[in-house]
Amino acid sequence: MAGSTFGNHFKITTWGESHGRGVGVVIDGCPAGLSLDETEIQKYLDRRKPGQSKFSTQRKEADAVEILSGVFEGKTTGTPISLMVFNKDQHSKDYGEIASYYRPGHADYTFDRKYGFRDYRGGGRSSGRETIGRVAAGAVAAKILKQIGISFLTYARSIGPVAISSSSWKLAEGNLSELAEKILSNPLYMPEELPCRQAQDFLKTCMANKDSAGGIIECIISGVPAGIGDPVFEKLDANLAKAVFSIGAVKGFEIGDGFSAAAALGSENNDPFERREGKIRTVTNHAGGILGGISNGMPIVFRAAVKPTPSIASLQNTVTRDGEPIEISIHGRHDPIIVPRAVVVVESMAALALLDLMMEHMGSRADFLEQFYKTGR
Amino acid sequence: MAGSTFGNHFKITTWGESHGRGVGVVIDGCPAGLSLDETEIQKYLDRRKPGQSKFSTQRKEADAVEILSGVFEGKTTGTPISLMVFNKDQHSKDYGEIASYYRPGHADYTFDRKYGFRDYRGGGRSSGRETIGRVAAGAVAAKILKQIGISFLTYARSIGPVAISSSSWKLAEGNLSELAEKILSNPLYMPEELPCRQAQDFLKTCMANKDSAGGIIECIISGVPAGIGDPVFEKLDANLAKAVFSIGAVKGFEIGDGFSAAAALGSENNDPFERREGKIRTVTNHAGGILGGISNGMPIVFRAAVKPTPSIASLQNTVTRDGEPIEISIHGRHDPIIVPRAVVVVESMAALALLDLMMEHMGSRADFLEQFYKTGR
Amino acid sequence: MAGSTFGNHFKITTWGESHGRGVGVVIDGCPAGLSLDETEIQKYLDRRKPGQSKFSTQRKEADAVEILSGVFEGKTTGTPISLMVFNKDQHSKDYGEIASYYRPGHADYTFDRKYGFRDYRGGGRSSGRETIGRVAAGAVAAKILKQIGISFLTYARSIGPVAISSSSWKLAEGNLSELAEKILSNPLYMPEELPCRQAQDFLKTCMANKDSAGGIIECIISGVPAGIGDPVFEKLDANLAKAVFSIGAVKGFEIGDGFSAAAALGSENNDPFERREGKIRTVTNHAGGILGGISNGMPIVFRAAVKPTPSIASLQNTVTRDGEPIEISIHGRHDPIIVPRAVVVVESMAALALLDLMMEHMGSRADFLEQFYKTGR
Amino acid sequence: MAGSTFGNHFKITTWGESHGRGVGVVIDGCPAGLSLDETEIQKYLDRRKPGQSKFSTQRKEADAVEILSGVFEGKTTGTPISLMVFNKDQHSKDYGEIASYYRPGHADYTFDRKYGFRDYRGGGRSSGRETIGRVAAGAVAAKILKQIGISFLTYARSIGPVAISSSSWKLAEGNLSELAEKILSNPLYMPEELPCRQAQDFLKTCMANKDSAGGIIECIISGVPAGIGDPVFEKLDANLAKAVFSIGAVKGFEIGDGFSAAAALGSENNDPFERREGKIRTVTNHAGGILGGISNGMPIVFRAAVKPTPSIASLQNTVTRDGEPIEISIHGRHDPIIVPRAVVVVESMAALALLDLMMEHMGSRADFLEQFYKTGR
Repeated sequence: MAGSTFGNHFKITTWGESHGRGVGVVIDGCPAGLSLDETEIQKYLDRRKPGQSKFSTQRKEADAVEILSGVFEGKTTGTPISLMVFNKDQHSKDYGEIASYYRPGHADYTFDRKYGFRDYRGGGRSSGRETIGRVAAGAVAAKILKQIGISFLTYARSIGPVAISSSSWKLAEGNLSELAEKILSNPLYMPEELPCRQAQDFLKTCMANKDSAGGIIECIISGVPAGIGDPVFEKLDANLAKAVFSIGAVKGFEIGDGFSAAAALGSENNDPFERREGKIRTVTNHAGGILGGISNGMPIVFRAAVKPTPSIASLQNTVTRDGEPIEISIHGRHDPIIVPRAVVVVESMAALALLDLMMEHMGSRADFLEQFYKTGR
Repeated sequence: MAGSTFGNHFKITTWGESHGRGVGVVIDGCPAGLSLDETEIQKYLDRRKPGQSKFSTQRKEADAVEILSGVFEGKTTGTPISLMVFNKDQHSKDYGEIASYYRPGHADYTFDRKYGFRDYRGGGRSSGRETIGRVAAGAVAAKILKQIGISFLTYARSIGPVAISSSSWKLAEGNLSELAEKILSNPLYMPEELPCRQAQDFLKTCMANKDSAGGIIECIISGVPAGIGDPVFEKLDANLAKAVFSIGAVKGFEIGDGFSAAAALGSENNDPFERREGKIRTVTNHAGGILGGISNGMPIVFRAAVKPTPSIASLQNTVTRDGEPIEISIHGRHDPIIVPRAVVVVESMAALALLDLMMEHMGSRADFLEQFYKTGR
Repeated sequence: MAGSTFGNHFKITTWGESHGRGVGVVIDGCPAGLSLDETEIQKYLDRRKPGQSKFSTQRKEADAVEILSGVFEGKTTGTPISLMVFNKDQHSKDYGEIASYYRPGHADYTFDRKYGFRDYRGGGRSSGRETIGRVAAGAVAAKILKQIGISFLTYARSIGPVAISSSSWKLAEGNLSELAEKILSNPLYMPEELPCRQAQDFLKTCMANKDSAGGIIECIISGVPAGIGDPVFEKLDANLAKAVFSIGAVKGFEIGDGFSAAAALGSENNDPFERREGKIRTVTNHAGGILGGISNGMPIVFRAAVKPTPSIASLQNTVTRDGEPIEISIHGRHDPIIVPRAVVVVESMAALALLDLMMEHMGSRADFLEQFYKTGR
Repeated sequence: MAGSTFGNHFKITTWGESHGRGVGVVIDGCPAGLSLDETEIQKYLDRRKPGQSKFSTQRKEADAVEILSGVFEGKTTGTPISLMVFNKDQHSKDYGEIASYYRPGHADYTFDRKYGFRDYRGGGRSSGRETIGRVAAGAVAAKILKQIGISFLTYARSIGPVAISSSSWKLAEGNLSELAEKILSNPLYMPEELPCRQAQDFLKTCMANKDSAGGIIECIISGVPAGIGDPVFEKLDANLAKAVFSIGAVKGFEIGDGFSAAAALGSENNDPFERREGKIRTVTNHAGGILGGISNGMPIVFRAAVKPTPSIASLQNTVTRDGEPIEISIHGRHDPIIVPRAVVVVESMAALALLDLMMEHMGSRADFLEQFYKTGR
């Protein structure tokens, strides 16, 4: 089935597997006239590049992106932008054995059941490398959003059992650019030092035990105007949920107070409206910036739960393709945790989902159409 | 924007608001030859009907569904099925006042910002009545799924702070039809008696305090064959997430261990494969029945967090449309909790998302096509 | 399959068959704030109403449209507009016999092969009544287009062998509102008197011979700004082609010079550019207003070929459902020609296709987005 | 806007312009398990390769396709197939001048109006090279169709004023493989020798006069089972119309008798049903294989009108970007006629549209679903 396309207006199609010729993405519907070069996209890609700390796989991947089409004289032309990263550091021999059995927590078995067979080299299409296309496209979406005043702050809220202490609201009201720098400067993309050190200790223990860990990623989007999203199926939060849940390893998604809201009283959970500096806003933000599926102008805050990396070196029971029991131990160069590298993937998917709905929104009112078409177009 | 359509194959479009002529849904793409009459749909609708216990609004709504098209001699024809419920018990006067201010936790403000004005009667399009169309369509989807061996068990896992004690896994392995009856027989749709009584006490206190409550809904889907869903953007879990998050008041979604998985070790979270009675399956089900976005044949288990009803009678601060501060108290016939009535809505959205992907899956392999078209078609 | 939805932004879903409860359409994505009432829609519907002349079926259908949702205080709310026409004048007995055999030129056989059976009453879903939904939605689309300066002139260019003599270009440059009135005032919707009389004579002979006729419908759209449509698959002409070809009985579609262009030389077919009154335009319009799939600001001109009504009273050979040969004669109240009634259907489909692409176009440039979102939204 | 994607199930996205790094296509949703290598795709591409006769541009383009993803051990994996052809023989200097003015019959002006500027090198995105992606994908679609018994015969029916004499019906009943060979063996892809020679003479005169020509392409599809297509908007003919009309230079499309049907009587146009060799079929095929939007099992026959190449060396009047009048003469290596090279593009688009609807059709009946899912899936 055709499931590698995301978005209706800023529509992306990712392709490629870890051991083919490369991976890429085609962005169809990128607005024309945007300044764009490889450097800006590369900056985003570098945030997910492996081999940057001892907590990510030691594979070396240059992951240098090339723009193959859609940009002329430094500007997007409005036609498809094809972006590609060639695969280089491939050790096919590392993966040969796994063709014969089903790794727990991986998609080996489900691919076989769906397609009748699978490209078993490096996870094939469910490899983390598929996200290169998402991040490359996300970089372009984020650039457009930045130009209309929207910015992202995305970070690891928890690693295994270690969580940061600041509330989301406090972070959202802080100096976002300072925070963004702080986050990028530490290997786990956490915004606080103490938990970051504790998390590193925890990960060292995991690795010593041939085990792996998960965590929670939080994303704060500021500057989103009120009115984005639709009241029924195309709610802004529903689209963010799908976008983020389409990232492998994500097992939960919540917005604003999320699961805690289920235990709160209405009187606690409702955000009172007020007027401040001439603008209507809410005093608190339990809703996470969205009411009835539509943005209310407050920061959008959501969290994604990421499961521990399924590839672990300790012994595991499983079966062969024929169903025979077998004991395995997965070697190779795997991340003990994918949370830090997934941070930019979450941010990219959120940017893609948001931009798509913002483009859609432009036709939502009769006066918008009249104004647009009566000014000489 | 066009956001009232859900699904690509079994495509539904809901329409209507609480104070118009009625609400309805058009199902386009329902397979031909399915036996169908109003009774079966009505049974589903009755599960969300208000006025059934003291914990739901005392509005009386017959909500009798009519099939307007697409069924001939008791069978679906393969063409659009139009289903409609006329609105009857409308007290427009109850809602007149709210035109002038923004209710906290409601979509009043965001509608005004999106569309320039709003139909303020009874929440307009963000009224709970919009879900009538979803449930009517969900009943048809669930019927088709039942015929191919798929069944649902959906219930309130928690009401405010009161949760049931059984694990999801234990429930999934119980006698599902017995459980289903037990759930339908109590006013809160909980599968255990003690927490159900405690939850009723809790809700009575809420109501006495002019306050409201939320809760968590859990859904278990059994009988789903392995292979459903796509490895990239159209993951089965991503589609379930969007489907469920498109229900008003849902603030969180998780699958399998969900947010708990983020704190687990890889060795704990991986589900070992085994062969039992000739079939490959997993020993545990932390994954909730989905690996790499594709069903693995185990029960699918997910949870949705539902926020407390925003309409409360206690005093709240807010602003008028002009931004002037005002103190309000919302009267009228509102549910102190929507969780019980939302149970069947969650089940309906899950059925719709699942069926849609199952129809899509039929063309995923070259041998499926050959087999289908070489048998005389 | 789900094939009753058209459009992505101004998305319509038609439902209903000739002998069910009624027929209708749901418009999802209609911009908010448009003044709308039943009268304006009815005016369009009346142009396709049967029984208006001796050349259309003598069935009496009031076809009174009702707005069931999406309009509040006389304005569209931005949420789904449900429009419905109840079926009234149904003679089920007229159609009972046709259940047993396959009428030549009809969809009886193909429905049976697709769905396994069919609703044989009055053509079921392939009845001309299905177009009521299209025309009702088209009326709304045309109203929006009119407000931004776009108007339609649609008429019968030929009836059987009788054609009008004026070239499309001459008509396009005439007084459109005068022409529109002239067209509506004659029973065949032709813009010239002599051919109209000749065509009526021809049709009388057809009817006397128990036979039927076809014709060609031409549509001129003026006021379309340059820039609408996409250079690859979503060309404006490709979308018009699909829209018009989705009308039953249409067997050909051409734009500008159409099939004649195939025999022309490049030097004849190219339209030279010139500047007139400060605006760039083309001197001639062989292209029919579209270059490379994108409107160029000139009038859009296209034609649709409509086949003769397949229901004829003269004897025909065919087979029963079991394949037995049988000789039939189709009685009942059928149009000897559907061209006049199809004129407004063609216009409606063109309006729907055009508006949809115009809404899409609003996000096509980075400066459009910046301008839209930097003005306080 | 995102207009470079075609299809819902076998979904293709083309990218690239004539003077970028290359052109390509991503096929998403290709069924898994299909044997596929570059040779088969190349064979199709070679049919549109320039420089093969004196009637096509003398540019040399190797146009060697590379499979970048989606094929493993010689079989499609069910995940996106990325196909690419690098651009080689580019003479950017040939095109520099055209940046300053608008060529008649080209999309220069409309691109500028849509996007604010354009990639003027070689037509940018509206270059004929864009069709490489369509043909590469079409080759894959045609292979799948061939395996289920469907074959194509596509040829030039007319070149300028010269047409073949055989009726479509006669050709459809001939020896299709012999005809296919005959067509491929002559430079104009015509199935008869005399008109082919006359057409060559005509084209020589055109070239001597610095002029160009158009023509009509006919396509016959045999082996399509009855039941494909939808009765309303997704009619098989409507989808073919859009598919073919999305090819640059196509100005008309007709199916079966097409425009001639408009002048016929019902008694002439209706195709009587008969039973022959146990199967129900029609005696004649005026309908072109489609009734009510659904295939009836007869050969599908359609024609496309292709306009003369707009690039001509004779003098033409036009304006500069600033609207100043200018006289131009377009030099460079242009096809005097594109009909022969467009033959395989028409066939490819037809294959893509047909396969997509055939995949969609698999879920159209409840018994299909039951049968599919009850056999152990």
